[in-house]
Amino acid sequence: MSTPRTVKGFRDYLPVQMIPRQRFIASVRESFESYGFVPLDTPAIEFSELLLSKGGEGTARQVYRFDDAGGRDLCLRYDLTVPLARVVAQHRGVLPMPFKRYQIAPVWRGEKPQKGRFREFYQCDADVVGTTALTADAEILRVGVDLMGVMGVGPFQLRISHRRMLDGVAERLGIVAEGEAAPSAFYRAIDRIDGAGLDAVRSELEELTPNLEFGLLERFLNLTEEADGGLPRTLRSLGEFFSGGAGTAAVEALAELVELAFDCGVPTEVLALDASIARGMDYYTGAIFETRALDMPEIGSVMSGGRYDGLVGSFLGKDLPAVGISLGLDRTFDGLLDRGTFREEWSTARVLVTIFDDDSWSDARSTAEELRSKGVPVLLPYERRALKKQIRSADRLGIPWVVVRGPEERGRGSWRLKNLDEGVEVEVDMAALIERVTTDV
Amino acid sequence: MSTPRTVKGFRDYLPVQMIPRQRFIASVRESFESYGFVPLDTPAIEFSELLLSKGGEGTARQVYRFDDAGGRDLCLRYDLTVPLARVVAQHRGVLPMPFKRYQIAPVWRGEKPQKGRFREFYQCDADVVGTTALTADAEILRVGVDLMGVMGVGPFQLRISHRRMLDGVAERLGIVAEGEAAPSAFYRAIDRIDGAGLDAVRSELEELTPNLEFGLLERFLNLTEEADGGLPRTLRSLGEFFSGGAGTAAVEALAELVELAFDCGVPTEVLALDASIARGMDYYTGAIFETRALDMPEIGSVMSGGRYDGLVGSFLGKDLPAVGISLGLDRTFDGLLDRGTFREEWSTARVLVTIFDDDSWSDARSTAEELRSKGVPVLLPYERRALKKQIRSADRLGIPWVVVRGPEERGRGSWRLKNLDEGVEVEVDMAALIERVTTDV
Repeated sequence: MSTPRTVKGFRDYLPVQMIPRQRFIASVRESFESYGFVPLDTPAIEFSELLLSKGGEGTARQVYRFDDAGGRDLCLRYDLTVPLARVVAQHRGVLPMPFKRYQIAPVWRGEKPQKGRFREFYQCDADVVGTTALTADAEILRVGVDLMGVMGVGPFQLRISHRRMLDGVAERLGIVAEGEAAPSAFYRAIDRIDGAGLDAVRSELEELTPNLEFGLLERFLNLTEEADGGLPRTLRSLGEFFSGGAGTAAVEALAELVELAFDCGVPTEVLALDASIARGMDYYTGAIFETRALDMPEIGSVMSGGRYDGLVGSFLGKDLPAVGISLGLDRTFDGLLDRGTFREEWSTARVLVTIFDDDSWSDARSTAEELRSKGVPVLLPYERRALKKQIRSADRLGIPWVVVRGPEERGRGSWRLKNLDEGVEVEVDMAALIERVTTDV
Repeated sequence: MSTPRTVKGFRDYLPVQMIPRQRFIASVRESFESYGFVPLDTPAIEFSELLLSKGGEGTARQVYRFDDAGGRDLCLRYDLTVPLARVVAQHRGVLPMPFKRYQIAPVWRGEKPQKGRFREFYQCDADVVGTTALTADAEILRVGVDLMGVMGVGPFQLRISHRRMLDGVAERLGIVAEGEAAPSAFYRAIDRIDGAGLDAVRSELEELTPNLEFGLLERFLNLTEEADGGLPRTLRSLGEFFSGGAGTAAVEALAELVELAFDCGVPTEVLALDASIARGMDYYTGAIFETRALDMPEIGSVMSGGRYDGLVGSFLGKDLPAVGISLGLDRTFDGLLDRGTFREEWSTARVLVTIFDDDSWSDARSTAEELRSKGVPVLLPYERRALKKQIRSADRLGIPWVVVRGPEERGRGSWRLKNLDEGVEVEVDMAALIERVTTDV
């Protein structure tokens, strides 16, 4: 017989992980909905031709791709952004604009599995399609702040940059002509500065331009280091550095976005400029951002996104502006799990109603029924075992309350209620029982 | 450019469908959890060798199967029961027993798509693993009753039968020797009686036994038609029909189950014996059941299940008793959608806070912030348009409340609140505003 096992890079979520995970997902959903984002669901399987036409290089290699019985060339979705673009094109005229959608769903990538990287993982995306207004970008940043709070990752930074600002740098370095977007290789090199150091990317940049003014790049990066006076001050210095072209326009847009974000309630100490973030995907066209949980550096950016005005409309053959954020649920959740953030629960039941003796079945069922009708999840044993064993099983499952009711309590119209966390036992009537098990959290 | 489209048999759930669908799923989850079932999640992709070893015939043809880049033979899960069996074997010793798990997740089958049949669809399964106690079967029936209520499908029947009772019939017909399970072809023939009629299956049965006592089968089926005195009476007549062997034992077990189910709160009028249900899967070993929504005959059995004591333990090489129920979420949901059961909502926001003039942005944000902090989802425009247009957009999205606040209201420390469903407008303070938008449901 073959050994039961999951495929490498895939895993089960047992109840003890799923219980906090589901609460986590519910909170993310609630955060999205509190800003008026609405849910969308798309198929796991799509035409390869459609999904792969939009991915950057590298995507095609990672994708699970296969022919179905009818010979169709299909693949599993590897993100939630390309499907969104497809949906917007396919259902145009039906969707309200601006279209604010969120999607919380698994995606699949055949990456080399390693610590924190899985081949099946959940993305939580919120995007606004159909407006260039920076109020949308600011709201997305605010949603990001809320998510970080909801997840309880502790102190964090929201680091922002702007693709057009990087284009301005490429312009000044002579890599591109005025008004042109920098090549992907430039963004990739910038992206590597934080990890590998500035010197390490020098040769990559020198391949892009014959006479690299390295000092200019150093000056730019120094300017982006936060000065006294905070982010608005830093942006003013950067404005002077560029004095015209794509860079100046981008810095002005960033300054406006920062103002709006503060006005939306993004705390000043949370927002930071980081010129070394560039985001891997080709499709970004405006502000870009990443988040770092300061106490969990090992998990990298837990949430990232930006403005991408070309991708969503690409199936329509025209630009359709969009800005969004994507939360790496699993990575964050694993980080919190490693830290022992969650109480160990094998059950979501609040109460175990014991079976006192063989004549107690109907009475126990009525008690359970009454509690359930008040919204209290109740576990009832299937077989009567010794009372001690029944209570011990509640304890092992992490169920906080146990109800015991024998002939004496029945005679008095009362119930014995035991709190296993505190070891306290009281005899109460039904109203008090419900009160106790519902108010304790 | 390729036309944006979904693969045949797959579909998008736009917000207008996803909003009621998500509420639906939340209710199902709540029903499961109120009985102490706990969530489990398993990968979409598993080793073909593991999943396909357990499926009945026909499964292998329907499955999405492919080799990954590492040459592994993988497939997409086609149900949630075989993965449960794998999990129980793989994590034995860790899982509490009896293990009561639920899973709400998509499965994939390359079936020929037709009305109500999709290649990607959600299953909602609740199973109890590790006990032969009929109290578990009874609870599963009760959970089924709750689900039907929660979904609002109207009047329904829970039809039950027993695999061993059918074995008893096969025994009496001379198809198998005493104590043997009937062949799959027998169950399939029985299953077809309801649709095709008794005469149509005659030849199938005659292939199984040289001298088919057709009259005996007719007598059995007549006995199962409900007599005066209800289900317990019917079961007594059946007990006399079998007088010994597998049939009698099964009828006794059914009678006990029915008693327990009534005691668990399953309404007597809901439970019905139906000897013509046999369930397609080979693995059932005890009670089996299907549900019919009487006002929605076109959607067939919306929920079905039964006891299967062999499958879950099969990876362990031993029996591990189990009983469970599976709800076909999409089929039921589609049926309700067709009936126009759900209000058309494009947003879950309760309130749209308008932007009165260019100086109102900060004030509108504070209002939104205050409402959100009280748990009220709020939509805020990204651009200021004419007030009428802002209000019209709320109406189109199905948002019931609109807040308007100009200099005059600000001067008076109040807000104008408009209910779009009723066309009523009031001027209120913040406390009253929150009160109104949170109490109206």
